[in-house]
Amino acid sequence: MPRAGREDDKMSKIISLAKRRGFIFQSSEIYGGLTSCWDYGPAGVELKRNVKNAWWRSVIAEREDVVGLDASILMHPKVWKSSGHLDGFSDPMADCLLTGNRFRTDHIEPQSGTVLTFTGAKDAKSGKESDREYKVLATHKAQFDKARKTAREYYKVKHGIEKAELLGETMEEVTNTTAFSPENGGLLSEVRNFNLLFRTFMGPVEDSSATVYLRPETAQGIFVNFVNVQRATRKKIPFGIGQVGKSFRNEITPGNYTFRTREFEQMELEFFVKPGTDEEWYSYWRDARYQWYINHGIAEENLTLRDHAEDELAHYAKACVDMEYKFPFGWSELEGVANRTDFDLKAHSEGSGKHLTYFDEQENTHYTPYVIEPSAGADRATLAFLCDAYREEGEGKGKRKLLSFHPAIAPYKVAVLPLVKRDGMPERAQALYTEFLQNGISAQMEANSSIGKRYARQDEIGTCWCITIDTDTLEQGTVTIRDRDTKEQVTIAESEALSWIREKLIAAKAL
Amino acid sequence: MPRAGREDDKMSKIISLAKRRGFIFQSSEIYGGLTSCWDYGPAGVELKRNVKNAWWRSVIAEREDVVGLDASILMHPKVWKSSGHLDGFSDPMADCLLTGNRFRTDHIEPQSGTVLTFTGAKDAKSGKESDREYKVLATHKAQFDKARKTAREYYKVKHGIEKAELLGETMEEVTNTTAFSPENGGLLSEVRNFNLLFRTFMGPVEDSSATVYLRPETAQGIFVNFVNVQRATRKKIPFGIGQVGKSFRNEITPGNYTFRTREFEQMELEFFVKPGTDEEWYSYWRDARYQWYINHGIAEENLTLRDHAEDELAHYAKACVDMEYKFPFGWSELEGVANRTDFDLKAHSEGSGKHLTYFDEQENTHYTPYVIEPSAGADRATLAFLCDAYREEGEGKGKRKLLSFHPAIAPYKVAVLPLVKRDGMPERAQALYTEFLQNGISAQMEANSSIGKRYARQDEIGTCWCITIDTDTLEQGTVTIRDRDTKEQVTIAESEALSWIREKLIAAKAL
Repeated sequence: MPRAGREDDKMSKIISLAKRRGFIFQSSEIYGGLTSCWDYGPAGVELKRNVKNAWWRSVIAEREDVVGLDASILMHPKVWKSSGHLDGFSDPMADCLLTGNRFRTDHIEPQSGTVLTFTGAKDAKSGKESDREYKVLATHKAQFDKARKTAREYYKVKHGIEKAELLGETMEEVTNTTAFSPENGGLLSEVRNFNLLFRTFMGPVEDSSATVYLRPETAQGIFVNFVNVQRATRKKIPFGIGQVGKSFRNEITPGNYTFRTREFEQMELEFFVKPGTDEEWYSYWRDARYQWYINHGIAEENLTLRDHAEDELAHYAKACVDMEYKFPFGWSELEGVANRTDFDLKAHSEGSGKHLTYFDEQENTHYTPYVIEPSAGADRATLAFLCDAYREEGEGKGKRKLLSFHPAIAPYKVAVLPLVKRDGMPERAQALYTEFLQNGISAQMEANSSIGKRYARQDEIGTCWCITIDTDTLEQGTVTIRDRDTKEQVTIAESEALSWIREKLIAAKAL
Repeated sequence: MPRAGREDDKMSKIISLAKRRGFIFQSSEIYGGLTSCWDYGPAGVELKRNVKNAWWRSVIAEREDVVGLDASILMHPKVWKSSGHLDGFSDPMADCLLTGNRFRTDHIEPQSGTVLTFTGAKDAKSGKESDREYKVLATHKAQFDKARKTAREYYKVKHGIEKAELLGETMEEVTNTTAFSPENGGLLSEVRNFNLLFRTFMGPVEDSSATVYLRPETAQGIFVNFVNVQRATRKKIPFGIGQVGKSFRNEITPGNYTFRTREFEQMELEFFVKPGTDEEWYSYWRDARYQWYINHGIAEENLTLRDHAEDELAHYAKACVDMEYKFPFGWSELEGVANRTDFDLKAHSEGSGKHLTYFDEQENTHYTPYVIEPSAGADRATLAFLCDAYREEGEGKGKRKLLSFHPAIAPYKVAVLPLVKRDGMPERAQALYTEFLQNGISAQMEANSSIGKRYARQDEIGTCWCITIDTDTLEQGTVTIRDRDTKEQVTIAESEALSWIREKLIAAKAL
């Protein structure tokens, strides 16, 4: 386990702010929570909607060569047979024989050291014996005693031997093993392949004929609709089909807040190209998607592209690159861009007996297009925008926390604050606030507590601009607009406040 | 079965257009489809997104007293215990003993007539006998022979008696029975209660401790988050929490296209009020929600409010009204507005041991709020907008089909059409088209085939305005804008086309 450091501390601060300010709550919290499920609160749902809408706008709406789709989560089981998910979509898993804790063995760091093997144990009091073999790994000589303690614990918990005398101890040096628990060094069970598909039953009878699966990715909904979409839209290759929606994977070890969850939302584009042009389009989308994060405020030093090595590639991919973000818990995958070749369309052609091909009018030939897939996680992107926006500034009384969101991503664009709760200021503020809401601009209004405290609260939810209604407003018809990041203030006519904000938002593609 | 008439015909036309133009495809169609699951194509996903966004804007974004939420689909099983879904969320179901067809017995119209009871049957050839009793309902005397035929079929199919001689026939008059199949009069099995929750397993072991359910409604995600949301936002009662998301119900008899499906999307608002003000707010939301449909183009004669009778109310409801739309297949529920009282918050307070109450600062008291719930189906609303927009006009050569969508609902706002594919018209059209896309206005461009055919295609996907680029554009810088519904044309400066369309859209709250 890594030691708690500055970055762990940053993550706890973000999680705490996210709960307090209504970004993210634990699912079913009043019932003790449900592992790896999270709910987006009032600020969080606006944040995530903005992330998804910015993706939709950039990848679909603004483009002539991409159209949208919204396929259902439940699909015909044969889809998952053809795609390979029913047979191959599994992770290697093993349990600690002592604690029952479960591990993805491909996530265990290989360890070296000495394996202590015991052929059994005897109860010093009752004489009761077990002849069950047990092994523990000690990575250093100094851990031999600890290893023996683990072994005694094993015979106690699993075989009811209260005061275990260990029998037949032998030692063997091993290198790079993943057969032992990284938590206590105890032996793991044999590795099993665990299929990650969530299974349910459609219709009133729970038998194999009624078994359906929750989709593990939105991509397959696009592939099976390729011909329907191409016919309806008459799009010519190259063109893409994009989709945003929930997917489900029964992960063995979910974790890291909203990063790895069993229920999650994807933003996937399948971009169909002529074979031979695939490498060019692969580069195009890798760059375009990288740029999208940067354009929406992610700092360049926190985003990197990591090409997959040949032996790391999925069986369907010719090339793949991970876009990795520097989360407080480490560099982790935000989005993958893959060259899936013609694997999927061919697999479904074969599975269904239909021809998922494209007719090239100019060249008068049919072919199976190649597919470039930029596949992003909406929850991961949302978390990255949240982490990247988090700042602490100043010291002592001037200290503040803020979420420095890009205007297109910020859940609230503007807050209207009457300086004091009298002299008609609240009414003036109310009128302006209503004007923003009616014009489709996400706004807040706060009249209680000091102006400093109100600024602080708005900074914590990342509101881009705070507009103050003060005596100048009443006397001269002006308002003061404070910038969240620079804290600089400008004074403009109250009657121009809406258009001033609107222009900024249009320039940022936030409207 | 109702006879196929003009309205059935209308439904098939809509379904056919919806497939052809990319609104709605059958899920997993290349694998023979998956019952009751549908995919939204390129035009459909834009339509449905517009419906959901119009709801979000009206119910959440424009209001000071409503905030949003996005809770997960998988929730702690105790949520469904407290809400009553685990024990009570079931439909009564029975099977035809002959065909195995399944019926919701509460959907069977009570029938009267004569029940023919047979104590068994004997094979005229082999002499083989069955002493199994069987009953058939004949609703008229003239149907006795048909009833006996059904009985012989039963003994043949179920007991292998090829040429059945019916034994021990007796007759009895019955009134208002639902014990017989509405299809063939044959006896149904005993009524069982079938729970509508979709069950799955979280984590690698499929046992009862791992059982979780797909939510059957988004509402409970709101109730369990009531305190978290109220604390984070400091909202004062009355205020509401709204949510859009997928829900799942294992319906016994899904059907009517996208109307009753097992996977569906809801748009739900839970509006929390002080007890005593609940009836007033109930009326308010009933009217506001009715008006929302009208404001977005639904014809008044196709929308009605039907109050639930006392004996029709759910156990948690004090009052409920169904908003019913006149679909081609009959008047059917689009949205329900219910006064759920304090049932849910109290149920979860009891179930979780937490206090889901509200502290009224002015009156210095804690109380459990009442809840008014307008609960709409996003798929049903989308289908209603589609059906309501469908028109056929004219005769012969002038005949056209169109989807007369409200501008906020229409998937495409504008199409840019160069009159001919030469003289620089396509390039001018392309530049204008790009301008619309870059400004967040959903647009189409079509250059191929005659202008008449292109108008026809745009009418069929409900594009509000068609802009033609012609020789006047090249010579005088003007464009012609054709209105989809009136077919009237206006000529304006090309440089003003964007602002002309934008103004219309802003006025319609489509931007």
